[in-house]
Amino acid sequence: MTSFFERIVKRSTEIQSLLCVGLDPHGEQHSVSEIASFNRELIEATKSFAVAYKPNFAFYESYGIPGLIALEETLKAIPKNIPVIADAKRGDIGSTAEAYAKALFEEWAFDAVTVNPYMGKDSVEPFLQYSDRGIFILCRTSNPGAQQFQSLTLNDGQFLYEYLAKIVITWGSNVGLVVGATAPEELQKIHRLVPNTPLLVPGIGAQGGSINDVIQAAYNGWGKMLINVSRGIAYAGIHPDDSAKEAERICTLVKRSIKSLES
Amino acid sequence: MTSFFERIVKRSTEIQSLLCVGLDPHGEQHSVSEIASFNRELIEATKSFAVAYKPNFAFYESYGIPGLIALEETLKAIPKNIPVIADAKRGDIGSTAEAYAKALFEEWAFDAVTVNPYMGKDSVEPFLQYSDRGIFILCRTSNPGAQQFQSLTLNDGQFLYEYLAKIVITWGSNVGLVVGATAPEELQKIHRLVPNTPLLVPGIGAQGGSINDVIQAAYNGWGKMLINVSRGIAYAGIHPDDSAKEAERICTLVKRSIKSLES
Repeated sequence: MTSFFERIVKRSTEIQSLLCVGLDPHGEQHSVSEIASFNRELIEATKSFAVAYKPNFAFYESYGIPGLIALEETLKAIPKNIPVIADAKRGDIGSTAEAYAKALFEEWAFDAVTVNPYMGKDSVEPFLQYSDRGIFILCRTSNPGAQQFQSLTLNDGQFLYEYLAKIVITWGSNVGLVVGATAPEELQKIHRLVPNTPLLVPGIGAQGGSINDVIQAAYNGWGKMLINVSRGIAYAGIHPDDSAKEAERICTLVKRSIKSLES
Repeated sequence: MTSFFERIVKRSTEIQSLLCVGLDPHGEQHSVSEIASFNRELIEATKSFAVAYKPNFAFYESYGIPGLIALEETLKAIPKNIPVIADAKRGDIGSTAEAYAKALFEEWAFDAVTVNPYMGKDSVEPFLQYSDRGIFILCRTSNPGAQQFQSLTLNDGQFLYEYLAKIVITWGSNVGLVVGATAPEELQKIHRLVPNTPLLVPGIGAQGGSINDVIQAAYNGWGKMLINVSRGIAYAGIHPDDSAKEAERICTLVKRSIKSLES
């Protein structure tokens, strides 16, 4: 059985890309009937650059049940060899987390998920049981408010996100961390603490993170990091070709940054 | 405009109850086609004891989209005068949290939600904007792993959950806290820190919390606290009458505990 992270390394190496393409239809841009075809075109345009796709449930749920049907349609359009990450940030007590894990891994058949660790190990455990899937645990997120609790200093002088990173990676071999691109110093610090842990890095583009900063801070080989871009690609222009060009431009930037690291 | 918490105080006082009834269909007990009618009977049996109802999304999502259709049917069976809390524990960056708030408050039209604060204020802000709704923020949860991060000691000697309680209640007048019944000492400590903040208290019954401990720790008048019971009522026996009896028994226990406090 190939693990999720092995699949990611394999695909990332093959296509020489670190790009994860977010599939996040913003409500103000589409009626629900347009979502599936918009995503289909976006996937078609970006599939040779995308190591993985990542739909965020919020955008589909905001349309009610028809939005989730559009997500079902969207998933059908993703080529079988490209892993799909459910960005759902779930987290609940054990028996409830079990139901969420069943929802995301069995009903929806996602390859990986994002989860929120605030409730502790038993809230993540049911996800970890699916050993062929990937579990990206929120560590230091990309939003402005991330610092408020995540960067609190503990009584031993560590930041909460540092403590958390070291603990959660011991929970299973299928654990990765979500660390935002908007705080490259923290990203570097976390990467040095847990250098072998795969990272999912959101926050490029609309949120202000820079690809070169991310690569400099935490690049560790193909597939050890996924750089997510959602709006920057999906709404790059008015035509899917614009999305393809933007995805290609990002891949070129990534390769250039890696080259400058290695030289 | 009557706020959510005013509605809760009114109903709680009228029916002399603190009971929130969880509507959490466990997968091993039902096929998806049975959920709506099971819940309808449960609601009919418990409606004179329930200050509020609280479906947890996980259990519906675990059945895929048909589970969410069963949730829609379930909501139709709840009398209009009984508020409904979406237990979804969502939390994401601002623009995404906006989509979740729209999903839960507009598409689903819930009266209140539970949210996870780990990502900071901007991840909760879009919910707070709906000033007539209630936002229960996770503080000290009822599960065994809750301590792992929530009870970390900060560099000023406070526990994380204490610090968090004091911060999040400043975010809006429509904020309550989720504090588990399984840690009555922490419940008491939090209640003393933020005595005017409404509490949603899960963890009675299957999880091990005691009603008398909860009342002794944090009772502050009708409607200032909701004690949630899910499995203990829904699966009290094989007939809806068993659920009605269990709901009544809990209400009697609550009244007896309050009386002993006052004497």
